[in-house]
Amino acid sequence: MIRIGLMGYGNLARGVECAVCQSSDMEMAAVFTRREPDKVSVRSGVPVLPALEAPLWRDRVDVLVLCGGSANDLPEQTPHFASLFNCVDSFDTHARIEEHFGRVDAAARAAGLASVISAGWDPGLFSVQRMLASAVLPNGRDYTFWGKGVSQGHGDAVRRVPGVLDAREYTVPVQSAVEACRSGLDPELTARQKHTRVCYVVAEEGADKAKITEAIVNMPNYFSDYDTTVHFITEEEMKRDHAGLPHGGFVLRSGKTGWDSQERHVIEYSLKLDSNPGFTGSVLAACARAAWRLNQKGQSGCFTMADLSPALLSDLEGAALRKML
Amino acid sequence: MIRIGLMGYGNLARGVECAVCQSSDMEMAAVFTRREPDKVSVRSGVPVLPALEAPLWRDRVDVLVLCGGSANDLPEQTPHFASLFNCVDSFDTHARIEEHFGRVDAAARAAGLASVISAGWDPGLFSVQRMLASAVLPNGRDYTFWGKGVSQGHGDAVRRVPGVLDAREYTVPVQSAVEACRSGLDPELTARQKHTRVCYVVAEEGADKAKITEAIVNMPNYFSDYDTTVHFITEEEMKRDHAGLPHGGFVLRSGKTGWDSQERHVIEYSLKLDSNPGFTGSVLAACARAAWRLNQKGQSGCFTMADLSPALLSDLEGAALRKML
Repeated sequence: MIRIGLMGYGNLARGVECAVCQSSDMEMAAVFTRREPDKVSVRSGVPVLPALEAPLWRDRVDVLVLCGGSANDLPEQTPHFASLFNCVDSFDTHARIEEHFGRVDAAARAAGLASVISAGWDPGLFSVQRMLASAVLPNGRDYTFWGKGVSQGHGDAVRRVPGVLDAREYTVPVQSAVEACRSGLDPELTARQKHTRVCYVVAEEGADKAKITEAIVNMPNYFSDYDTTVHFITEEEMKRDHAGLPHGGFVLRSGKTGWDSQERHVIEYSLKLDSNPGFTGSVLAACARAAWRLNQKGQSGCFTMADLSPALLSDLEGAALRKML
Repeated sequence: MIRIGLMGYGNLARGVECAVCQSSDMEMAAVFTRREPDKVSVRSGVPVLPALEAPLWRDRVDVLVLCGGSANDLPEQTPHFASLFNCVDSFDTHARIEEHFGRVDAAARAAGLASVISAGWDPGLFSVQRMLASAVLPNGRDYTFWGKGVSQGHGDAVRRVPGVLDAREYTVPVQSAVEACRSGLDPELTARQKHTRVCYVVAEEGADKAKITEAIVNMPNYFSDYDTTVHFITEEEMKRDHAGLPHGGFVLRSGKTGWDSQERHVIEYSLKLDSNPGFTGSVLAACARAAWRLNQKGQSGCFTMADLSPALLSDLEGAALRKML
């Protein structure tokens, strides 16, 4: 059994924990937290320890899954723990992946350990699909659409607007843009043409709703490049209708083969997820298995899902896997 | 440049040739044939040689792509050539893959070479998708649908019916079955419930069309387990409307996460291909790159696409590939 430790215990960590407990070849070993350990109740019942004590668990944890955020936690945590454990993280700040990779690689290599970074579905499974599709159909073009689903980062941004008590943001792909890509028209699409954004907001009593709406739809980086609709709802409606964290999306590659590029092909990969952290946790658990196997094979350094074969991720082996061919 | 040899020069080989010539890191070296070499005109202009002379090209061919059939050619050819070259084949007789794997593995291992078998899209990319989806969503169920597309094996079977001059068979997925799988109903489906078969037949003059239809729809293995429609058309219509070899299909996995399996997720992968041999050839070319790289890394033996990471298949390397994350 591969013994898994978790750093952090939020929604994502709980998803990993559930996937590990339901797997045939992994088991939970410990949860590390920066909160008061006494105040963290862990479903699997494994010990909860202060994050600072993690190094003492080197011989009781085979893979440490880092479940913190990409903005503040992972840039420090993964390079640090990569020198102590085989690690998995879900680092998703695209512009900084190369820098993160370099730091984790140096730490893991020096320690003879294996880390898998940027795991999940995007980056992660969607990246794998973009790579696979471009490898088998090099003369082509990729499109990625997200949604319909909850973007937690956008919801957080809306909650920072004065007068907003609670908010939920849904990213919605524009169906006509999707169809244009599917039909092989190879359109050039702006951010606005690909996705719309829909916000559900609980406002403070007496707040100026028009002002809140203005602040949201014009917010740079998050909303100003999109057509955004804002709906004001009650706290009860928020709880009743928007408690889940569904997400999904798809990766399309439209490409051509033939001497005159006369043969057109479309590859499409889609995810429809009831729970983003539940599914992402399940992907991270499979990557923990892969990190462990890589290290058992004597490999060390930093890896991404681009380096992982299906056989490394699967709990099946050899002949059993070939039956799925 | 990775130098590619082809064994055989039919539709599939021409697809591989085109993909190799359009790649940045591979080039055609030779075509080997059991026909009269003089009578084979090769688009890329490389030498055409008798199949028996292939062993003399060991130092001029880095990877040999075997483009023969699974019934008679590949069971003999791949184990034979796996001891001489890094090889790729598209062996697709599902029941015999394990036996084929064992023979190729022994030959390649003894020679210190790497072979990739059963490459293409099913087996191949579809297998990879089934493996990936089950690795990240172990509590779930797979469905594979083929079509709408031309099954050459079924067309061949119809052409063997007395009174038939020419025939084309299309495999068509049943839309209501697809929707039931997508919606997560986890249906149990028979062959008949998943696909229908549509045949276009050019009959000999004066042939008994009712008898031909009877012979087709009741043909065991090929048609008797399906609802089959037979259309009689003219030779001109066959040429005009059914010259292409389109195909495609999709792999669906419907699965659950969460302690009470309350979160439902659907993963779907689909291909829509104008030309089956054009696309499959492009996949085999990417696998030739992977076979070469595996061997360059000192690995030998038999591999399937389950063992290939996206990085092995892609012409991009390291940092360039990570940009696709």
